[in-house]
Amino acid sequence: MNFELTDDQRAFEETARQFAEDRLLPNAAHWDKEHIFPTDVFREAGGLGFCGLYTPENAGGLGLARLDSSIIFEQLSMGCTTTTAMLTIHNMATWMIATWGSDEVKSAWCDALVAGEKLASYCLTEPGSGSDAASLKTKATSHQDGYLLSGSKVFISGAGSTDMLVVMARTGEAGPKGVSAFAVPADSEGIVYGKPEEKMGWNAQPTRMVTFEDVFVPKANLLGDEGQGFTFAMKGLDGGRINIATCSVGTAQQALNTANAYMQERQQFGKPLAAFQALQFKLADMATDLVAARQMVRLAASKLDGNHADKTTYCAMAKRFATDVGFDVCNQALQIHGGYGYIKEYPLERHVRDVRVHQILEGTNEIMRVIIARRLLSDLTKVE
Amino acid sequence: MNFELTDDQRAFEETARQFAEDRLLPNAAHWDKEHIFPTDVFREAGGLGFCGLYTPENAGGLGLARLDSSIIFEQLSMGCTTTTAMLTIHNMATWMIATWGSDEVKSAWCDALVAGEKLASYCLTEPGSGSDAASLKTKATSHQDGYLLSGSKVFISGAGSTDMLVVMARTGEAGPKGVSAFAVPADSEGIVYGKPEEKMGWNAQPTRMVTFEDVFVPKANLLGDEGQGFTFAMKGLDGGRINIATCSVGTAQQALNTANAYMQERQQFGKPLAAFQALQFKLADMATDLVAARQMVRLAASKLDGNHADKTTYCAMAKRFATDVGFDVCNQALQIHGGYGYIKEYPLERHVRDVRVHQILEGTNEIMRVIIARRLLSDLTKVE
Amino acid sequence: MNFELTDDQRAFEETARQFAEDRLLPNAAHWDKEHIFPTDVFREAGGLGFCGLYTPENAGGLGLARLDSSIIFEQLSMGCTTTTAMLTIHNMATWMIATWGSDEVKSAWCDALVAGEKLASYCLTEPGSGSDAASLKTKATSHQDGYLLSGSKVFISGAGSTDMLVVMARTGEAGPKGVSAFAVPADSEGIVYGKPEEKMGWNAQPTRMVTFEDVFVPKANLLGDEGQGFTFAMKGLDGGRINIATCSVGTAQQALNTANAYMQERQQFGKPLAAFQALQFKLADMATDLVAARQMVRLAASKLDGNHADKTTYCAMAKRFATDVGFDVCNQALQIHGGYGYIKEYPLERHVRDVRVHQILEGTNEIMRVIIARRLLSDLTKVE
Amino acid sequence: MNFELTDDQRAFEETARQFAEDRLLPNAAHWDKEHIFPTDVFREAGGLGFCGLYTPENAGGLGLARLDSSIIFEQLSMGCTTTTAMLTIHNMATWMIATWGSDEVKSAWCDALVAGEKLASYCLTEPGSGSDAASLKTKATSHQDGYLLSGSKVFISGAGSTDMLVVMARTGEAGPKGVSAFAVPADSEGIVYGKPEEKMGWNAQPTRMVTFEDVFVPKANLLGDEGQGFTFAMKGLDGGRINIATCSVGTAQQALNTANAYMQERQQFGKPLAAFQALQFKLADMATDLVAARQMVRLAASKLDGNHADKTTYCAMAKRFATDVGFDVCNQALQIHGGYGYIKEYPLERHVRDVRVHQILEGTNEIMRVIIARRLLSDLTKVE
Repeated sequence: MNFELTDDQRAFEETARQFAEDRLLPNAAHWDKEHIFPTDVFREAGGLGFCGLYTPENAGGLGLARLDSSIIFEQLSMGCTTTTAMLTIHNMATWMIATWGSDEVKSAWCDALVAGEKLASYCLTEPGSGSDAASLKTKATSHQDGYLLSGSKVFISGAGSTDMLVVMARTGEAGPKGVSAFAVPADSEGIVYGKPEEKMGWNAQPTRMVTFEDVFVPKANLLGDEGQGFTFAMKGLDGGRINIATCSVGTAQQALNTANAYMQERQQFGKPLAAFQALQFKLADMATDLVAARQMVRLAASKLDGNHADKTTYCAMAKRFATDVGFDVCNQALQIHGGYGYIKEYPLERHVRDVRVHQILEGTNEIMRVIIARRLLSDLTKVE
Repeated sequence: MNFELTDDQRAFEETARQFAEDRLLPNAAHWDKEHIFPTDVFREAGGLGFCGLYTPENAGGLGLARLDSSIIFEQLSMGCTTTTAMLTIHNMATWMIATWGSDEVKSAWCDALVAGEKLASYCLTEPGSGSDAASLKTKATSHQDGYLLSGSKVFISGAGSTDMLVVMARTGEAGPKGVSAFAVPADSEGIVYGKPEEKMGWNAQPTRMVTFEDVFVPKANLLGDEGQGFTFAMKGLDGGRINIATCSVGTAQQALNTANAYMQERQQFGKPLAAFQALQFKLADMATDLVAARQMVRLAASKLDGNHADKTTYCAMAKRFATDVGFDVCNQALQIHGGYGYIKEYPLERHVRDVRVHQILEGTNEIMRVIIARRLLSDLTKVE
Repeated sequence: MNFELTDDQRAFEETARQFAEDRLLPNAAHWDKEHIFPTDVFREAGGLGFCGLYTPENAGGLGLARLDSSIIFEQLSMGCTTTTAMLTIHNMATWMIATWGSDEVKSAWCDALVAGEKLASYCLTEPGSGSDAASLKTKATSHQDGYLLSGSKVFISGAGSTDMLVVMARTGEAGPKGVSAFAVPADSEGIVYGKPEEKMGWNAQPTRMVTFEDVFVPKANLLGDEGQGFTFAMKGLDGGRINIATCSVGTAQQALNTANAYMQERQQFGKPLAAFQALQFKLADMATDLVAARQMVRLAASKLDGNHADKTTYCAMAKRFATDVGFDVCNQALQIHGGYGYIKEYPLERHVRDVRVHQILEGTNEIMRVIIARRLLSDLTKVE
Repeated sequence: MNFELTDDQRAFEETARQFAEDRLLPNAAHWDKEHIFPTDVFREAGGLGFCGLYTPENAGGLGLARLDSSIIFEQLSMGCTTTTAMLTIHNMATWMIATWGSDEVKSAWCDALVAGEKLASYCLTEPGSGSDAASLKTKATSHQDGYLLSGSKVFISGAGSTDMLVVMARTGEAGPKGVSAFAVPADSEGIVYGKPEEKMGWNAQPTRMVTFEDVFVPKANLLGDEGQGFTFAMKGLDGGRINIATCSVGTAQQALNTANAYMQERQQFGKPLAAFQALQFKLADMATDLVAARQMVRLAASKLDGNHADKTTYCAMAKRFATDVGFDVCNQALQIHGGYGYIKEYPLERHVRDVRVHQILEGTNEIMRVIIARRLLSDLTKVE
């Protein structure tokens, strides 16, 4: 057991910190306000390897561990929550293609995806199947040397601005075993993109409904075998949950640092806010919870790296805990700023709006509890 | 002791409910999105007496109790948080003018203010004096038959779109006793309005900095005597805190109703969300907390109506408790909606953004604790 | 709507306060330590009417409203939580006998019960039926001119030291409609009392299992008609929940007062604890929550007095909210005392131990949520 | 970074688990009830090395890391919180003697202390100096070839039943720099032991006031140099806080396991409690928080082992977080048991009573926040 980062991890961290500080932090407010999806910045991120962090090296990725990736994503999210979150989704989708894609698809797409020249979205949720993902209805029926996809996906991050869609669709029976996963080029004929959803936050990336109207997908674009799609989707989500939890940790750390600095600078009643004990205690609790959240995320990442039998449980715990803490810390940091926390001249209200969705997506925090409880009640062996 | 509304109160409530349903609810999302300050709707509200609810009858108001007013504001805020909050500020400022204004000012302004034809803002906070309001620096120096005001006020709700400003400025020594209150026409020469602040919420009303550059204010526009301004400001805030707390209660009730309906309609895993016990318990706690919040608000209003020695403490308790509960209930209602809670097609994210500022303004919830603790520690007689 | 106590209520409150101060407060720690059931003090309480507060006047009681009774019980519980709680159970059982008992039973028992010369217990819970009370298995089978009772009841407060048992037993079908209520003299042949349970708190009253081995109960001792017992039990519990919630409020007020005094007296770092802002804020939140809890209890009592359609919901809300707040306030008061809070020389740890069970009995707080949610989901009309 | 236990750590863990299961768990309730200090069991623990876990090997200890020790203490506390807590205090005091004691004292005492044949107490707190430990007043004045100690210590765990006291006393100026540490044989002439405090919990060890009436202590019994005592005391407490936090984690894990098993076995409404989603979610949150608490403890232990610059901050965070979580988890586990949680036939109420003091001792959780905030506000470098 060892809690220190390795030299390599420190180096990754520093590279990411620098990138966040130079390329993300100065632009994040603007991207939020103007709803800009910074394609060029994703490409720059790709140049540093951030678009294929845990994609295997044989597919052009860095082949890093999830723990290493989390360390990097944390730094990036200190610069911009939303673009980093999009980046994590792209990483997840890219990893799925690189892991279960046919040689044909891999050779056609992986280089560009890993370079950040092309971007990928993950299409699981449907209007009627949110938490109950396995009940999805999008159909993939055999057609010539491939499939015809029809159905609708909602809340698709990046949709309309990405190049590749990883789509879960039903090829067989009802339930999880009838689901298959496909790599579908985003410009395939028959794909209709809805208008961008107007959201509370996450404005630096479009979220759209995607409708498939008899979209032809070649056989080679099936990931793995028929019926494996739900398993792949869930494996993707294990890592996805660590990633999204990481984005909460990084954003909250940024909010905490901002609040800390503000407390030392802002004067009221003739002394800095930092002199008021009740605010000191609030800051102490924020920091303590955040350290715990970070540990939970790294523990889960480590369990996923080690393919631990309980990896899914740890990922669910980390996602639940860190996204809740992340929201609370950002929200407290806003409160410490008083009226200034509520206006867009300061970053706090954006942090709150951005991390709020982390408690919902990639499995709501309620679904995380379902996963955790199911494991706990399966037997008495402790999850430690 | 009697917890039932009177027939009159029921009637006021019903009138307000109807107005909220017809004129506010259908427009609230649009006003938020487009940042519209609905002047005409304030005038309509004035037509029903809602612009001078507790303004004395001799100044054209309804002369209602604060408790009655709270019952009305609660219904209105179920339709639109932001415009109702603005309305409560207008009511507070109008009441101050009607209570401490000279006959000249009263006869010139009260009819129009009460009718909602003119609107009023409340100008206390300054860049350097938020929680420490008594340290304000805006100066009012004697000049001819009046005063010259110079200084800056920030976070002024309605500023730029209102007609009258109630301004706290320093005429004497440092500290609260050197502060006086003035009724300053909003178009007085030398008043400079900043650009509208971009805010997390409360978008249906502009918030601006107001700078006074040697603005002449006639003697008649002094409220009460010199040196009474801070006392007036605080008296205004007792009621203002009940009002803002009320807006949290109403909005949270609306959010709770929406979540309740959604739980009965939305299906997951083959049954409505309402069938899941964990969500049932969440709903039960939301409702329980909200009933408690409403009681706190009504208790405080009643203490203010009765001029109870501890009225300020009760108002602080109500403001702290109800705005915290209001935020939590809205935030939980958002969570119950999953991804749909995060998009603007549904009202939940707006509710969260709007009520968030209630924990900050008219005295942050931290300042409320200061007020409460000071009273508790003054002696051992219980505040019950 | 009116939140002021009447003169009568003030007078009741003062009488109860005096009794608590003189007869309960000086003895409570001793009773806890030595596990003493102070029979004589119950008789004294009876002399003041405290044993039949809401028992109808025609049965010798004071016929007070539940709200009045709550005001009295609150004061008493400031002196001793456990004996007051026992007193509330006795009041509930006495009220049931006075309300649904036959003339024969009433004339034989009510005078003594109301006088506190005889005491009564309430026997609902069974080893296998806690939260699921309606599944109780104790049987009452017809036998000559009466019934034979057989079965076991657990967690019976006062059992072994009381004179009368109100027993819910099954005379008919499974479920709530097959349950009847009986007034069973505690010394009836065939009743076997278990040894006193060793408990975390509530030590000033014995809690025992009661086993009925073919106990003969005359027909006249049936309360109401066969099949009405569960309804009676639940009606009793509406009031019982207000009472137990009241005991949490009173105890917490006592703990808060103690902590407040301690903060002003205890010096650390050269100043009183009262000078530390973080402790001030803690105290402020304790007091605010407690005011809210008291209001919830009084609101519910008022709804019960007015036979409001939602009275059961309000009672459940009050019980849930006030017993949770009561525990938290006592627990925080303990913390404020540091090491002194943990030792029996100070009352704090006893307060914590005593109020802890209020979150469990007369329906756990989980069952309260079930009751509240069921009502909320029945339709959209708000419970306000 | 690596979250897996080493084989050695697994082996230690297993040994401790076995000992806890065989020797502690079957007796813990009895020791609590009868207030038994199980001297023989401490000696058995010593036989396994548990009395000198992190005492250097050259003083007879195992010389383990704090992290290793925490893994062991966690298992032991699953068997009995109180005796394990006492054991941790003994380990701390023994480590202090072994680290800073003169050769004379070490050779006279270490073997017996490490063997558990002699036990040691830690004497810092005084009636007037709890949180403000540096203001302690016990005096050590030079006398012949040594010192005369006079003053009083309170809340001394084990006092009256232990053989050696590590005493902090003032040899110089006011404040921390005037404090020295002494190893004082518990039977020295002039030491007067108070009667055992009656406590909420921690009943398996006596807590007494210790009064020093001109107690002669030879020069050789000074630990280190004059004026170093407060530094030693605080260094001891860094580890002490990890230990006490560990005892909360172990106890909470035991409570969680018990609640988990109970939920699967206890039937209500025709199904096991485990089938109720609200209880499932509660269990999931308990487990998640507990995993986070364990990580915080191990992170802090690791920082202490590595002599990290922020070790004191991490220890404070771990102590605050883990003891709060520990209490909440035990308290929730009690609630899950309903009435059975409140009686001594089940272990839950004992767990709650025992872990409650962990939030208070070795620095209250309020003092932990002071420590954490001071560090956070010292600069902006994050504590991660």
